[in-house]
Amino acid sequence: MLVTARADEGMWLFNQPPREWLRTRHQFDPTDAWLERLQKASVRFNSGGSGSFVSEDGLLISNHHVGADAIQKLSTKEKNYLQDGFHARKPEQELKCLDLELNVLQSIEDVTARVNAAVPKEADAASAFAARRKIIAEIEKESLDRTGLRSDVVTLWQGGAYHLYRFKRYTDVRLVFAPEQQAAFFGGDPDNFEFPRHCLDFCLFRAYENGQPAKVKDYLRFSPTGAQDGELVFVSGHPGRTSRLLTVAELEYLRDQALPYRLGVLKRLEVLLGVWSARSEENARRAKDELFGVQNSRKALDGRLAGLLDPELFSAKLKAEADFKARLVGKPEFAEALAAYDKIAEATKIQAAQAVRSLLLEGGAAFNCESFGLARTLLRAGDERPRPNGERLREFSDAGKASLELGLFSEKPIYTDLELLSLADALTFFAAQLGVRDELVQKVLAGKSPRDRAAELIHGTKVRDVAFRKRLYEGGASAVAAANDPMIEVARLVDEESRALRKVAESQSEAKQQAHAAISRARNAVLGTTGYPDATFTLRLAFGTVKGYEEDGKPVPPFTTLGSFYERAKEMNHRPPFDMPGSWEKRRSRLDLKTRYNFVSTVDIIGGNSGSPVVNRAGEFVGIIFDGNLQSLSWDYAFSDRQGRATSAHSAAILEALNKIYGAKEAARELVNGRR
Amino acid sequence: MLVTARADEGMWLFNQPPREWLRTRHQFDPTDAWLERLQKASVRFNSGGSGSFVSEDGLLISNHHVGADAIQKLSTKEKNYLQDGFHARKPEQELKCLDLELNVLQSIEDVTARVNAAVPKEADAASAFAARRKIIAEIEKESLDRTGLRSDVVTLWQGGAYHLYRFKRYTDVRLVFAPEQQAAFFGGDPDNFEFPRHCLDFCLFRAYENGQPAKVKDYLRFSPTGAQDGELVFVSGHPGRTSRLLTVAELEYLRDQALPYRLGVLKRLEVLLGVWSARSEENARRAKDELFGVQNSRKALDGRLAGLLDPELFSAKLKAEADFKARLVGKPEFAEALAAYDKIAEATKIQAAQAVRSLLLEGGAAFNCESFGLARTLLRAGDERPRPNGERLREFSDAGKASLELGLFSEKPIYTDLELLSLADALTFFAAQLGVRDELVQKVLAGKSPRDRAAELIHGTKVRDVAFRKRLYEGGASAVAAANDPMIEVARLVDEESRALRKVAESQSEAKQQAHAAISRARNAVLGTTGYPDATFTLRLAFGTVKGYEEDGKPVPPFTTLGSFYERAKEMNHRPPFDMPGSWEKRRSRLDLKTRYNFVSTVDIIGGNSGSPVVNRAGEFVGIIFDGNLQSLSWDYAFSDRQGRATSAHSAAILEALNKIYGAKEAARELVNGRR
Repeated sequence: MLVTARADEGMWLFNQPPREWLRTRHQFDPTDAWLERLQKASVRFNSGGSGSFVSEDGLLISNHHVGADAIQKLSTKEKNYLQDGFHARKPEQELKCLDLELNVLQSIEDVTARVNAAVPKEADAASAFAARRKIIAEIEKESLDRTGLRSDVVTLWQGGAYHLYRFKRYTDVRLVFAPEQQAAFFGGDPDNFEFPRHCLDFCLFRAYENGQPAKVKDYLRFSPTGAQDGELVFVSGHPGRTSRLLTVAELEYLRDQALPYRLGVLKRLEVLLGVWSARSEENARRAKDELFGVQNSRKALDGRLAGLLDPELFSAKLKAEADFKARLVGKPEFAEALAAYDKIAEATKIQAAQAVRSLLLEGGAAFNCESFGLARTLLRAGDERPRPNGERLREFSDAGKASLELGLFSEKPIYTDLELLSLADALTFFAAQLGVRDELVQKVLAGKSPRDRAAELIHGTKVRDVAFRKRLYEGGASAVAAANDPMIEVARLVDEESRALRKVAESQSEAKQQAHAAISRARNAVLGTTGYPDATFTLRLAFGTVKGYEEDGKPVPPFTTLGSFYERAKEMNHRPPFDMPGSWEKRRSRLDLKTRYNFVSTVDIIGGNSGSPVVNRAGEFVGIIFDGNLQSLSWDYAFSDRQGRATSAHSAAILEALNKIYGAKEAARELVNGRR
Repeated sequence: MLVTARADEGMWLFNQPPREWLRTRHQFDPTDAWLERLQKASVRFNSGGSGSFVSEDGLLISNHHVGADAIQKLSTKEKNYLQDGFHARKPEQELKCLDLELNVLQSIEDVTARVNAAVPKEADAASAFAARRKIIAEIEKESLDRTGLRSDVVTLWQGGAYHLYRFKRYTDVRLVFAPEQQAAFFGGDPDNFEFPRHCLDFCLFRAYENGQPAKVKDYLRFSPTGAQDGELVFVSGHPGRTSRLLTVAELEYLRDQALPYRLGVLKRLEVLLGVWSARSEENARRAKDELFGVQNSRKALDGRLAGLLDPELFSAKLKAEADFKARLVGKPEFAEALAAYDKIAEATKIQAAQAVRSLLLEGGAAFNCESFGLARTLLRAGDERPRPNGERLREFSDAGKASLELGLFSEKPIYTDLELLSLADALTFFAAQLGVRDELVQKVLAGKSPRDRAAELIHGTKVRDVAFRKRLYEGGASAVAAANDPMIEVARLVDEESRALRKVAESQSEAKQQAHAAISRARNAVLGTTGYPDATFTLRLAFGTVKGYEEDGKPVPPFTTLGSFYERAKEMNHRPPFDMPGSWEKRRSRLDLKTRYNFVSTVDIIGGNSGSPVVNRAGEFVGIIFDGNLQSLSWDYAFSDRQGRATSAHSAAILEALNKIYGAKEAARELVNGRR
């Protein structure tokens, strides 16, 4: 089977680290201080991604592709920081991001018992969901009021446990340094998820408090020598989602329906944005970040689907489930767990039956543009905010208010032409998916073609004006209604069905969570309580070794070098996306070409880990995760270190580039010294 | 409504030209000789496309993108004629195409009565289809034996008429001249279907007979001055398919199911081939022609879907059908025609229900690679050839034998890596569409992942060896079985269901044809017999005027110039696909930049018309059709000259480029003189 007995598998909770395994396998015994420092130096990008503090003056490092969203929002046609890079020599030159929120985990509290106690035993799924939502909102609000910290109750083990995570929030975050995107993402989509690789995928931000660089106690010492072949390394970051504990019924749904459908949506968008980008440089600039996201997801999902279509992986899943069930059969104490498999299959079937309409309406695929998202948030804020905290849709809870408002009132640029393109395409997709005879389609299109209707809505709405949004948000439902904004009225048109679909989906999720909780209990009883829950964008600790692998009978060494970077560009005739930035062509002679550039390790990661620090036993920063290879894409379902690898940029290359390519001496010095 | 009363609409049959219209509207009365010359100078590319003779020595002109398939097959990594262009100064340098077949229409005979008489009145659809297939094969064979000419019975008016078309075949066709693809297809996919436009989309071939340049009596005189603003022009070519006479039920099926589904397939392929092409120059070369085809279809289908989603177009269709039905109601002689609408709806429903499996199996989308196509042809040839001519699958009829063998024994290059890529993707699609639990999917995958199974089949099959194909084709079914070739055995595995699906589809098509024939008779009785049948890749005559249009309130002039070509490249910073070939950069100063380059006209065309000559009243060649604008894409369903335009390259630009950019004096001289 794929998972060898000895693989360094796992995305471990910081409050349940794999001490025994580390001790026996790697003779390493992390102290509480070691763990706490790593935890508190780890930063979550709320926009999706990870990072870490690397100086006591709030300097933090992440991937360029994690920061790209923020950099894109700071860029214009004239000042294209995404393309040309950015470099602040002094704090006063640092650029404040428009709506970036960073979270740093301060504490974890197990609230499973309190959450479950509030859910009546015999309640149906919908009532159980409502009760659970209520108690979670209550716990979060209580914690926020008491500590002032962002407080999220997170679901672990698919519903087996509920933990309260408290975060320090930073919302004044400033851009310090970014290389050109062409250096950060050299090789573009063709080289994405491949190895050997040559990407300077990092950028630097600084967290501010009260208008001053934040003073942080816990940060990582930056290692100028960086990762070594064969050494044990750790990754602390925020893996977004894995599906390793799903039942076979859930995996089959993903394999046969959900993934193929989502891939169709992604490929449609990829063609749309690609064609539009090709028509002008400015189009390309405007769509770049979104197009990257689409291509990245497409490649990841293609890889995940290939994983599920691999009979080796899938038959192991079938066997594991059958074996485990066999151990439960005939034991009354496990009857509930056994029955849980059928409940999960049933709930999956109900969700599958409405999946297309759900994706189109509640998922917003029928209206894929920023204006619609803003319009719906305004509409729902008007309806939700007067309700008691525990009865609102989750995103409108008191605990989430600050984050919601940060996004809603962001001054980020929204491009009318891209909005038009996206909405016309989305409405076409909507009509094609449900058929023009569908009543809701007819109401939405209002007798017009998708293109004409999109133009009418995008030109007619005022939601792209922040002052308008503030006015409606503060004025509540009556102000929203009085505005008679066409986009908001479209959001209203679909809201009843959209909410109904969401309610069914949430009820079935609740049913699944209860079933998974039963399975989880049985697993603990039969197999013991060791292990780690599936990833849920919560902080995790993973570990492994720096190590190459074999492919098509040939060894793939663990490191690339700055020298092989130049070779790769030459081999591809510098044809985009294998064209080097001018800075690298000009200053080649300054570089030590033997400097390690990118490297692979057996650390268990997944999307969301991007930007995670790679640290050695001494807790030093030796590299930064930015990708996995193609063979790692099936890690969503099962880990294997046979060929799957995590890909990082090496700390030595980061220093070399800052010093010799970019002349960013101040930043380099701060990294090495850990202070300004 | 879209179609103004005065639009020059129509793709007219050469045996039913719109004489009256031309006389009254344009004061033009084409003589029989004028028509016959144009007909016999018109050339059909069997690979899909049109062209025309332009010299008595067999020189013929078509689009570069029509010839690209043949040019691609002549190209290698070292001699990339598609990219670099080609130029033979003497006949002995001309390159023989590997499997190109040209057809020149010699005569048309109405065989409707004979075909219908052979179909028993009360037969069910399946028997009626078999009877019709039998009589058609008989007529074709008889004609072939008697005249030696390729003889095709073509279906017109959706089944309202059957005509016997006799063609002279040319299979020794040699490449004379091709510009660089970057000149022919400047602006690539982004500018495709757009106007203003700057494409030198032509190439020259020569037809040979008995090893010598063919002597042709009917060819077009090439006009050095070319098309003029406002003049009446004619287009003689082979529009592939229009759907203007479909019923509302058929159009709704296209709009809500068929087109969205096919677009999904195309976008999937576009991403696959695009990503693969980006990984190396040689990949890009190998996939180029196929990628162009996919992108071209995608853009066309996106446009057609937009047309059907335009309420103006669709409500006109609804109204026209309702109005016509109203005229039939209550009249016993039209009862059959009225009932025909329901029969068509019913047949469409049956076809729709099996459309996905049909496309995957009989359409081959589950195995999208050359090797599978060859394997299936070998398998079926073994089974079909021993049967009586009239009972075979149509492509194995005696009349089609020569064309079938030309393709089957072609020495064209087939690239293993591209085959692997395509088949692995297709098998993934197959599994995702039907689900892994599907019995046929399981049999085809044989317990392997799509990628592993694709590798096994592509590496295991011998069908890419022409000698092997010849041996199996000649050896028949027993030789095919004895070969035990893995790809042929996969074709056998799916053949039973595939044939069953085809049988249903063909029976339902027969049912539709009979129904359409009834509607056609009623239409003739009620509205008169004027008009033209939907396009079916048969030779048609269309006409219109050279004329600009208005877009977003601004006039779009009818001509671009060589000067505006340079401006466009500059405006796009010469970024691919807006990079000019070196030849054009170097020799700019030689050119008369005021020379007309591309132009638009109101001529009614569609895909398949590519390469059609544009001729003036004098019957002179004044340009070559290569595209339509975005607004013309809905012409599949309804013609409108409000904004829709056909796009051509101007004859003056062709001469200017041959003389001054390419130094191809011999070719230019032959064009002007009409002889070598």
